[in-house]
Amino acid sequence: MEKKPISTLVIRRLPRYYRYLEELMQKGVTKISSTELGKRMGTTASQIRQDLNCFGGFGQQGYGYNVVLLHDKIGSILGLDIAKNAVMIGAGNLGHALGANMDMKPLGFNLVRIFDINPKIVGKTIGNVEVAHIDTLEDFASSVNVDIAILTLPKAATAPMIAKLDGLGIKAIWNFSNEDIEVPGMIVENVHLSDSLMTLSYRVAEGKRPE
Amino acid sequence: MEKKPISTLVIRRLPRYYRYLEELMQKGVTKISSTELGKRMGTTASQIRQDLNCFGGFGQQGYGYNVVLLHDKIGSILGLDIAKNAVMIGAGNLGHALGANMDMKPLGFNLVRIFDINPKIVGKTIGNVEVAHIDTLEDFASSVNVDIAILTLPKAATAPMIAKLDGLGIKAIWNFSNEDIEVPGMIVENVHLSDSLMTLSYRVAEGKRPE
Repeated sequence: MEKKPISTLVIRRLPRYYRYLEELMQKGVTKISSTELGKRMGTTASQIRQDLNCFGGFGQQGYGYNVVLLHDKIGSILGLDIAKNAVMIGAGNLGHALGANMDMKPLGFNLVRIFDINPKIVGKTIGNVEVAHIDTLEDFASSVNVDIAILTLPKAATAPMIAKLDGLGIKAIWNFSNEDIEVPGMIVENVHLSDSLMTLSYRVAEGKRPE
Repeated sequence: MEKKPISTLVIRRLPRYYRYLEELMQKGVTKISSTELGKRMGTTASQIRQDLNCFGGFGQQGYGYNVVLLHDKIGSILGLDIAKNAVMIGAGNLGHALGANMDMKPLGFNLVRIFDINPKIVGKTIGNVEVAHIDTLEDFASSVNVDIAILTLPKAATAPMIAKLDGLGIKAIWNFSNEDIEVPGMIVENVHLSDSLMTLSYRVAEGKRPE
């Protein structure tokens, strides 16, 4: 079956749909119209229908969307139901914050080990996950299938680490170095907190502009 | 002059345009076509033109966009040229990571003070910014105009803190509690790292699905 490639912009909107539908489920809401959904997402009903039609559409004219069904379908499109092993490299402040507070399991991510170079941290646990010395990563990756490396490293340490990941069978990188990196043959998701801060800037500035 | 409200989706795309244009500037690229820009953003030339037309459009038929001009214009739309004072509340791992590593100045944000309750941290500095006791926030906010509170607090501590912010003249919250919060009369930008992780999940899962 031939598949039409889905625009990155649509993919990037799906997590927000997913989160909102989860909220609705928790409130016991069972159906929602594309108009309501659009309002919440800051867009139009027609955009919503267009987005969801990329995947075959799940709405019923005059009824709206079944919340649970749409939630599960989007989750499955996002691959949340597929188990993915992750390691985290860098147990500094950011690694600690993520490891201790972020529950990745509902998204299908299993954080199997954390690596660092600092002897004061190696041997401890963060959120029940063992912190091992980075020199043991290669051995670990040869015995456990690691899908994703979460890089919570300073900018300067990120590129040398990526070179070390080569050949370990790791398919993807979640990069927190605040820089866009590209690695041939690997999937890279660069986190840009600045995007969120710029959006906030826009909204704050709206109120500060001279009339 | 009447202004048409701009869709949230367009606003959310502007930071990515901005970052990419900055990259082009650093490489010395002076112009770019909507087709090239669209390719990089994972969308079409027509979507790009439509987005930028919301603000009057800055392209010239057959020439493309002037990179510096478009960069500066988007920066100004995002209000990055307007000075905004920020305080950070919560100097735990995440607060430390952000305070020490994130340079907010180029986005017009001035981190003026960090607050915490922990006597071990109070009195120290993070990235040259003083950490003061949270009890001094009210006094501080009465002498310095604080636009934004960055909440790097555990989930359970976030709601009580928001109640305390009431009446201090703070207009906006950058919320890292991993939960969507709404505060009447305040602008709230909720950071959702899970959105980025779900996008990564989609891309990793694409390769793992049974054919």
